[in-house]
Amino acid sequence: MMLKAPLPPGSTIGVLGGGQLGRMLAVAASRLGLKTHVYSEEANPPASDVAATTTVGAYDDDTALAGFADAVDVVTCEFENIPAKTLEIAGRSAPVFPPPKSFAVAQNRLVEKDFLSALGISVAPYAAVVDLNGLRQALSDLGAPAILKTRRFGYDGKGQVLIHTESEAESAWETIGGVPSVLEGVVRFEREVSVIAVRGQDGEAQFYDVIENVHRSGILATSRAPARISDTTVFEARRIAGAIADALQYVGVLCVEMFEREGEEPSLIVNEIAPRIHNSGHWTIDACPVSQFENHVRTICGWPLGTTDRHSDAVMTNLIGDDVNQWPVLAAEPGATIHLYGKAEARPGRKMGHVTRLFPKT
Amino acid sequence: MMLKAPLPPGSTIGVLGGGQLGRMLAVAASRLGLKTHVYSEEANPPASDVAATTTVGAYDDDTALAGFADAVDVVTCEFENIPAKTLEIAGRSAPVFPPPKSFAVAQNRLVEKDFLSALGISVAPYAAVVDLNGLRQALSDLGAPAILKTRRFGYDGKGQVLIHTESEAESAWETIGGVPSVLEGVVRFEREVSVIAVRGQDGEAQFYDVIENVHRSGILATSRAPARISDTTVFEARRIAGAIADALQYVGVLCVEMFEREGEEPSLIVNEIAPRIHNSGHWTIDACPVSQFENHVRTICGWPLGTTDRHSDAVMTNLIGDDVNQWPVLAAEPGATIHLYGKAEARPGRKMGHVTRLFPKT
Repeated sequence: MMLKAPLPPGSTIGVLGGGQLGRMLAVAASRLGLKTHVYSEEANPPASDVAATTTVGAYDDDTALAGFADAVDVVTCEFENIPAKTLEIAGRSAPVFPPPKSFAVAQNRLVEKDFLSALGISVAPYAAVVDLNGLRQALSDLGAPAILKTRRFGYDGKGQVLIHTESEAESAWETIGGVPSVLEGVVRFEREVSVIAVRGQDGEAQFYDVIENVHRSGILATSRAPARISDTTVFEARRIAGAIADALQYVGVLCVEMFEREGEEPSLIVNEIAPRIHNSGHWTIDACPVSQFENHVRTICGWPLGTTDRHSDAVMTNLIGDDVNQWPVLAAEPGATIHLYGKAEARPGRKMGHVTRLFPKT
Repeated sequence: MMLKAPLPPGSTIGVLGGGQLGRMLAVAASRLGLKTHVYSEEANPPASDVAATTTVGAYDDDTALAGFADAVDVVTCEFENIPAKTLEIAGRSAPVFPPPKSFAVAQNRLVEKDFLSALGISVAPYAAVVDLNGLRQALSDLGAPAILKTRRFGYDGKGQVLIHTESEAESAWETIGGVPSVLEGVVRFEREVSVIAVRGQDGEAQFYDVIENVHRSGILATSRAPARISDTTVFEARRIAGAIADALQYVGVLCVEMFEREGEEPSLIVNEIAPRIHNSGHWTIDACPVSQFENHVRTICGWPLGTTDRHSDAVMTNLIGDDVNQWPVLAAEPGATIHLYGKAEARPGRKMGHVTRLFPKT
């Protein structure tokens, strides 16, 4: 269901989830004269500091969800692992963007890979796994090393284990808890890139510059824009992201993570789809007139797409766990823009903030 | 009283006033992991949409003010006409920045002009006026045309009347309500400029690029950065702003409005001091890594000054009253960044939003 007319200033955006992405979304909404109502399972989440209203409730609390959806003009989501039922309940009272199908695809690694393959988009070699015997067969087919991944609830490197030799099959199967999984062949790649696409209610899509990412321990460490890749690869990366967005009849900001393989270019395979604003696009706050967050707000509210141009090159560095204690040093660094998420406790692996460093546009 | 140590992320800034300046201040604070608590006379002011907490109370409500000040780590103000008593009450429980003396100077046009003159800074010829006879004498001394201005509570062209000839003295005196006033000689000028200075707790000051302003009906219409003035004039404008900030032992962002007179340069006279973030600095949100709002937050919290460099040139246009109805057109203009303040009613003369257009840095 698309909006018949743009939501005027003064309207309220309902955001399922209250983390840092919701927080930056609420800030972007405020710039456009829009209010934010956050729905969060935990009390005092980061986004509530800048939201007009916060509802604390479980994602399976029908009554609380219905009240939330009644109170807002449009519903969106700041994380992909939202239960389908939650979106369905919200959708009875308010339009929901991105379309729920995007979450269904992104929440299940097998569905996601089948969806991409059906579009003719390259992915790593993979096989469905439902039991230990199936895992052994898949390892024999794909060869080791390979990565065993749960189909659901994976993020930041969670829910996956690297299998070096076939003899590790049993321990790997135990490690991931014996749940329905996917075995993926290990792909040798030169670099990881991502594309942040934004697609409007009329189907128009735009793309920010392709981003080059470095992960550490499965968690995004740095993003550089633009990526140091050829124009041909840029074109192909955007084409792939556009094809995915079109196939999902997507509305909002979508991130597609890809690997650039060694060898003849362009040689991209898609690793993952994130149906939301994304950590690898945080640099757009500082380096673009219209950030990924504002473009997400614009499109889910039926506004025209904002420009995806950048005025500066950028390198974004995440502050993970104790990294955040460097804030006095970073605050004193000329030209570093510091973003802190208002989280009280700096647990290991927790994203506490990020720093963007700008450079003249190349 | 200066802070002994920077306020850490998670601290709360108390903002007296809940308008658009408070709103943009709250957004800047959130970026640094700081919370905002707004104190406002009206319910649901623009800033409350993005503030963690809002207290609605009168500026002479001692109990509400004391409770507010107890709940925050530092107090600042988003408008200059805050009663001295209000600042005094808040100051019993929390440090207040900018220093209350800045408000005492800026709230009274006579005190302001005497203060500037004592610093050797040029101002328009002026004379204190307390009665009609005094006004006639002042008109005879300064000559007509001249502008009669109330000493207090003037902003956006309010509380002033242009006197074309001496015969208009009586009607002018009636128009401003017969209150203590200042008569100012009319100065011929080539352009209006302003300087946004930021001064830290250690006395270090930095300056954004000098801004060129155009007013219509006494209200700021557009600001352009950088101003089209000589390097000599830029240097002199910054020197003046720095001298004022030092004399006030200022902490925070300070705006100094000036006229550039015809004739040999530099020939600047100071029109007005605003002890706060200022409309003519809104372009810094989009054109600088660190905006005036963030630098205000940084300095009142004892953080290091952020850079005042710009990555782009900018033209900011205010959306006054019905101008805001153009939002669908502006939202569709490539490269225009639109800011709306979440005000429900577009009264004539009311600042409803602004638009920034960026250009490659000259």
